[in-house]
Amino acid sequence: MFTFVLKYKNLREVLMDQKLASLGDSFVNFIYSLVLSKRKEEPIGAKVDSRILSEALKKAGLRKLLPSRIDRHTQADAAEALIVYAWIQNIITMKESVNILEQHEDPVEAFCTLLLTTTKKLNLTDINL
Amino acid sequence: MFTFVLKYKNLREVLMDQKLASLGDSFVNFIYSLVLSKRKEEPIGAKVDSRILSEALKKAGLRKLLPSRIDRHTQADAAEALIVYAWIQNIITMKESVNILEQHEDPVEAFCTLLLTTTKKLNLTDINL
Repeated sequence: MFTFVLKYKNLREVLMDQKLASLGDSFVNFIYSLVLSKRKEEPIGAKVDSRILSEALKKAGLRKLLPSRIDRHTQADAAEALIVYAWIQNIITMKESVNILEQHEDPVEAFCTLLLTTTKKLNLTDINL
Repeated sequence: MFTFVLKYKNLREVLMDQKLASLGDSFVNFIYSLVLSKRKEEPIGAKVDSRILSEALKKAGLRKLLPSRIDRHTQADAAEALIVYAWIQNIITMKESVNILEQHEDPVEAFCTLLLTTTKKLNLTDINL
């Protein structure tokens, strides 16, 4: 369906793709909005703060794959890129992503677990970046 | 999954729910980003302009269900609310929504067709607002 996902040669290329991060931003905001809507039992449209995503990236041990001199927003972009990449590649469904996120009240913990699940699943697939 | 969808008694209540529109905004931006990403063969994160959605609402004949003195943004909100309502209620899948949108180069035409498909399907279900 999305031919562009075939071009990435390694995980670092996924994490550093700003265009993929832009699509990922849209995906991450939507799934997090679903999580909050379920939790509060009313519809909510949310935007995930870059601080949350950059912290989650660090906690998941993925920060070290990126150049040292990048700012918080670029770190958050990396998390967004990886999360949407996994969804596009059918490594994780939207429902699974929402299920993982809603198990953690703390959003950093929630996104860290999603990133860890994603990287673990990536290692088990042929894609193995 | 989302208990709050049960509270709407008619289509007008769906169209006028600002909170539902907020979740819908997130959904609409995501599906439209997917459409553009497929079309351009590269990842794109897009935000659908309220002018497009308000025009689509008018063209689909749904504007008349709303009070006459509402602005363009509230009209766009109504479109977003209905589109995400249909997805939450399993009246239309995300894949179907993307398929409908990508058949039309013109975004107003694309969203008008999505709204028309949605209202037609609503009329065929038990939900029948």
